[in-house]
Amino acid sequence: MTHAGRRALLRARLADLDVPAALVTRLVNVRYLTGFTGSNAALLVAADGRDVLATDGRYATQSAQQAADLDRVIDRRVLTHLADRAARAGLRRLAYESHQVTVDGLHSLREATPGLELISLNSAVEELRSVKDEAEIDLLRRACAIADRALAELIAAGGIRTGRSELRIAHDLDSRMLELGAEAVSFGTIVASGPNSAIPHHAPTGREIEPGDFVKLDFGATFAGYHSDMTRTVVIGRPSQWQREVYDLVATAQRIGTEALGVGIECAAVDAAVRNHIAAAGHDEGYPHGLGHGVGLEIHEAPMLGPSAAGRLGDRMAITIEPGVYLEGRGGVRIEDTLVVRAQRPELLTMTTKDLCVI
Amino acid sequence: MTHAGRRALLRARLADLDVPAALVTRLVNVRYLTGFTGSNAALLVAADGRDVLATDGRYATQSAQQAADLDRVIDRRVLTHLADRAARAGLRRLAYESHQVTVDGLHSLREATPGLELISLNSAVEELRSVKDEAEIDLLRRACAIADRALAELIAAGGIRTGRSELRIAHDLDSRMLELGAEAVSFGTIVASGPNSAIPHHAPTGREIEPGDFVKLDFGATFAGYHSDMTRTVVIGRPSQWQREVYDLVATAQRIGTEALGVGIECAAVDAAVRNHIAAAGHDEGYPHGLGHGVGLEIHEAPMLGPSAAGRLGDRMAITIEPGVYLEGRGGVRIEDTLVVRAQRPELLTMTTKDLCVI
Repeated sequence: MTHAGRRALLRARLADLDVPAALVTRLVNVRYLTGFTGSNAALLVAADGRDVLATDGRYATQSAQQAADLDRVIDRRVLTHLADRAARAGLRRLAYESHQVTVDGLHSLREATPGLELISLNSAVEELRSVKDEAEIDLLRRACAIADRALAELIAAGGIRTGRSELRIAHDLDSRMLELGAEAVSFGTIVASGPNSAIPHHAPTGREIEPGDFVKLDFGATFAGYHSDMTRTVVIGRPSQWQREVYDLVATAQRIGTEALGVGIECAAVDAAVRNHIAAAGHDEGYPHGLGHGVGLEIHEAPMLGPSAAGRLGDRMAITIEPGVYLEGRGGVRIEDTLVVRAQRPELLTMTTKDLCVI
Repeated sequence: MTHAGRRALLRARLADLDVPAALVTRLVNVRYLTGFTGSNAALLVAADGRDVLATDGRYATQSAQQAADLDRVIDRRVLTHLADRAARAGLRRLAYESHQVTVDGLHSLREATPGLELISLNSAVEELRSVKDEAEIDLLRRACAIADRALAELIAAGGIRTGRSELRIAHDLDSRMLELGAEAVSFGTIVASGPNSAIPHHAPTGREIEPGDFVKLDFGATFAGYHSDMTRTVVIGRPSQWQREVYDLVATAQRIGTEALGVGIECAAVDAAVRNHIAAAGHDEGYPHGLGHGVGLEIHEAPMLGPSAAGRLGDRMAITIEPGVYLEGRGGVRIEDTLVVRAQRPELLTMTTKDLCVI
């Protein structure tokens, strides 16, 4: 879908809200609706189709290239400039992103345009973004392929081995993703070894890998703005009985989560299927986080899959399925894929095997 | 200075505002005041000294390690939990970060604590952060040293050469910073070659370096949370007359900016000294951005150095000086250092030579 097509979908929402225009200020939403990637921008989407992108002088050339189909204005005060333009065009009501605009931002907006009635747009753009088009899915596929290949190369090169530090392994993996064409890593790569693997969000340290460790790797690549997200847990040397049990439990839970995916399924129901399985094995306390999240231009976006998640899955939503079980002081396992919800069966984007990898 | 010492400085501001407590919600401010680095947190700083840090279950262990000296509560709804605690403690007024809290966030806060009068804390914590202590300056020094060394190694290894793409050079530089101990890169590394060097904030592309190109590299390393920021522009092969002229103009402007730094000097005056020099050479239109910015836990923070900047420089403020001149379609030069304002003369943290480097 073109950026103009996305703006047309947002325009349809404006009619529902009974507003003649919306001011989009979350940068990732501006990018989604225009293609513009600068760090200062706002977009006015108008019911009459006269949309305008505002940015500052640093981005005059770039915005002309990336959003050539749009009217553009160059003014550092992007928010108030566009609100003022809307007011001068005779608009009385304007929707804005109340989940992004700060209290101070709203104050400036009101001062600049005293006559304008401001209405929350809520997460209308995030809702559009939760359903991917095939071009977006292709970018996600490429981001996931980079991560898959980087991990395969890391393992093949002996990059995960006794005596090597978590930090060193993380940097090695990051470098491989960048070499393979990632524009950036999706988030701070997690490499968590031994007892550290029991910490769900562990930042890599100088701890060196030891025989018998679980090594949990949670990482992703960004490609053309789209993020991949994958976790694999490997074991160093022959796995012990408890390691096999925890690994099998999480692998089965992860499969249950994947099989629960489908168009129209409640997000909370997918979480519950997995959570019930882990609880039945007596490990509910060892699983303190949600099952997964949407992924796209942001590493975490709608929809969320958790116990209190609202809403249902839709066709072409991209999500992660990432249960984990963590035994404090001993170690933990998380297994995570990025997938796309499809009418028939989910499409798996992260291809690395989920069989226990013994190094 | 200890984190408790920083909180004591903020407490002194509470008296000025006549509020008994402040709710700090900007994560970077929470980190500055507590040492806690998790991705969900809020901090209540109280006049009576009973400060409390709130975070969620993922960070129970980490918050206990990083903020052992603080009372901690585990609750995912960090903002409303602490506001509710303040209200139950009998407080009637509470300062909050109106430049960070969104309109929706304020709405939740008001719903949770209807009796509480909410007052803007403004940028009190950012103002404290603009003046660095010696421990912070040491971390900035180390972040800058990593960037210096990574660039020296890149050049020594022939990493900037004809036929190599901007993206490849950027990844090479990033990998070297990570290998040298950076926990991350400070921002998306800019490598801009030939005509692209005329784009102030150019994202690296597949364009391959050609003889006669300017190659502008703007990059930094993060070390223990502190960012470095440096730009150098090199030339491939013998520089032409116009390249020498533009380079000399920017190098002189950069020196003028550095020499204008001093305790008590107006931020706008530093910008003006440089801008006037570039304008006198007829290139004011080729210099469309501010002169520099504070740097620390954020890559851009207070103070700002630009034409409309308010305020004055203080002892131990860390800032960048980064003028540039960009000739559309031909190329551009930016030269940037990170420095610390000192009573005698500014301390230079980025050590790489500013003599024109011919490759």
